[in-house]
Amino acid sequence: MKAARYHDRHDIRVEEVSEPSPAPKRVLVEIEWCGICGSDLHEYLSGMLSSQLCMTCLILLGPHTIRKPGNPHPITGDTLPSILGHEFCGRVKSAPENSHFRPGQAVMVDPRLNCGSCRQCSTGADHSCPNFGFLGYNGGGGGGFSEVVGVEERMLYALPENVSLDFAAVIEPLAVAEHAIKLTAVKEWNKQSVLILGGGPVGFATIVMLRAHGVKRVIVSEPTSIRREQTAKIADVVLDPRTDNVGQRCRSMTDDQGVDVVFDCAGIAKALEAGMEAIRFEGTYINIALWEHPVTVPLFPWFTKEVVIKPSMCYNDSDFRDVIQMMAEGMLVHLVC
Amino acid sequence: MKAARYHDRHDIRVEEVSEPSPAPKRVLVEIEWCGICGSDLHEYLSGMLSSQLCMTCLILLGPHTIRKPGNPHPITGDTLPSILGHEFCGRVKSAPENSHFRPGQAVMVDPRLNCGSCRQCSTGADHSCPNFGFLGYNGGGGGGFSEVVGVEERMLYALPENVSLDFAAVIEPLAVAEHAIKLTAVKEWNKQSVLILGGGPVGFATIVMLRAHGVKRVIVSEPTSIRREQTAKIADVVLDPRTDNVGQRCRSMTDDQGVDVVFDCAGIAKALEAGMEAIRFEGTYINIALWEHPVTVPLFPWFTKEVVIKPSMCYNDSDFRDVIQMMAEGMLVHLVC
Repeated sequence: MKAARYHDRHDIRVEEVSEPSPAPKRVLVEIEWCGICGSDLHEYLSGMLSSQLCMTCLILLGPHTIRKPGNPHPITGDTLPSILGHEFCGRVKSAPENSHFRPGQAVMVDPRLNCGSCRQCSTGADHSCPNFGFLGYNGGGGGGFSEVVGVEERMLYALPENVSLDFAAVIEPLAVAEHAIKLTAVKEWNKQSVLILGGGPVGFATIVMLRAHGVKRVIVSEPTSIRREQTAKIADVVLDPRTDNVGQRCRSMTDDQGVDVVFDCAGIAKALEAGMEAIRFEGTYINIALWEHPVTVPLFPWFTKEVVIKPSMCYNDSDFRDVIQMMAEGMLVHLVC
Repeated sequence: MKAARYHDRHDIRVEEVSEPSPAPKRVLVEIEWCGICGSDLHEYLSGMLSSQLCMTCLILLGPHTIRKPGNPHPITGDTLPSILGHEFCGRVKSAPENSHFRPGQAVMVDPRLNCGSCRQCSTGADHSCPNFGFLGYNGGGGGGFSEVVGVEERMLYALPENVSLDFAAVIEPLAVAEHAIKLTAVKEWNKQSVLILGGGPVGFATIVMLRAHGVKRVIVSEPTSIRREQTAKIADVVLDPRTDNVGQRCRSMTDDQGVDVVFDCAGIAKALEAGMEAIRFEGTYINIALWEHPVTVPLFPWFTKEVVIKPSMCYNDSDFRDVIQMMAEGMLVHLVC
């Protein structure tokens, strides 16, 4: 079959590879949709065989998740070249005997690899398994940028009739957003003003999920016009950080207090600085972005406002299930904007 | 009277100044004890009349809290030269008519200046008043490094008979520690392992307060031998970050999980890196230190362990009162080590 494999920075090749073979507990899935994640771009743009900090441009060099030769993934044994793509869904091609799945069935793949038995996996924090990895970065049956993938049954979700595959394809980034939203520990979203830094796919997914949670006000800061147009359909206010003073504008919309929560979906210093200006005293700053440059916190607004900073890493089983459930219940209406 | 006044970086002069004059609601206090705060050292070492980031050494230049000419403090109107010293106590020299205080009475001064009427001051977050300042940096009646200070009654606490003035002098740094401890939101300290980065006065104060709260285990990382000796009297384990691998040692003492809470009382990059290695998944990292260099968070341990970072800024009325109460009740036994 054909597959797009990562070999090195700026080097992804569409190649002929073997199709995954059937095995006990393994379902083969014909892929219909696969998204391109920002992390894929990070690997493509900054991934290099020497993982280190480039002292000239202060960029963290990768590959970040993909394993280099000599450092195989502990679960799969995979090293590059690796098939990319981890936001994918499709239909069952074949299932083992006694499987819950049947050929032709629409399924969503939770692409996370973990051991399933360590302390973290046993306590719901399965996204922090020491052997964490991904289909689409670390082998184990393939990745979304190929024709067929082999998946353990426990990583598969049968999709309800009313969820079409083209919508299901975005469940993965929506789970990323849902995890970040849960980390805030906010109870009453209808009282919260939120700033989202970066209106790309994860920024957009965060707005969709916040709307489903009934957020009071969403402000987006995004420099590119196409993303401002897209997010303007579901956000309350969209700012251009090149021409707007994001901090001042946010404070003026919040009785001079600042926004309650910032979601950083940008991962650049200027956005972080604007977010720290925009946030209120004791506000919560959630970082979803994977930074390529060092994360340097602006001391004085952070310190004097006692801003809580939390990084949100991926998602866990519960987040993934919740998003599928919310989609099935028709709560994610802002996806259709 | 004599007073030590800050004029510029490396320029503190003992000078003759006017004694504060009596006024309605103002109590004059003869100072007996005054501590030297790390923030005083910051002003002395890095304070310069041009407040900016030095691009050669990447040090944040001050003065940080002291006001420069042309930028008077909004409450006091003070600019440098300013009398230093904000960790002080003494005895009442004179009190206005109808005062609760009487001459000769032992008193502790809460040195914080705030307006007392804004939204923050009205909601218990009086340490985030937009007009925040300090006796000992911003005038308003003097500072601790002088003979007499004039203090509003609301900033004074009568000391119980069993609290001697030499002990009371450390109430202020203990309140700094108490505020940081409350920020963790930990309920059961008897189950918590803690790493303290830096065994200086605030690190020591944090151990004292944690002991009063019944903490399970305190590990200290401190490079200087005199401070290691001092903290070893009340900590469980004291490490030397120049020779010990702090992250590994902390994990080996916590069943390979990492410590639950880190208190950063150091404010340097190497300590932050060690703290991020030492902390557990979803641990809480409290920064008390005022950094002179940019705060750059090590991306991968922070991100993959979803470490919550909170800065702890000063203290509020409640923290200050609580420490005096705990001292009066004999709970701070580890001060006498």
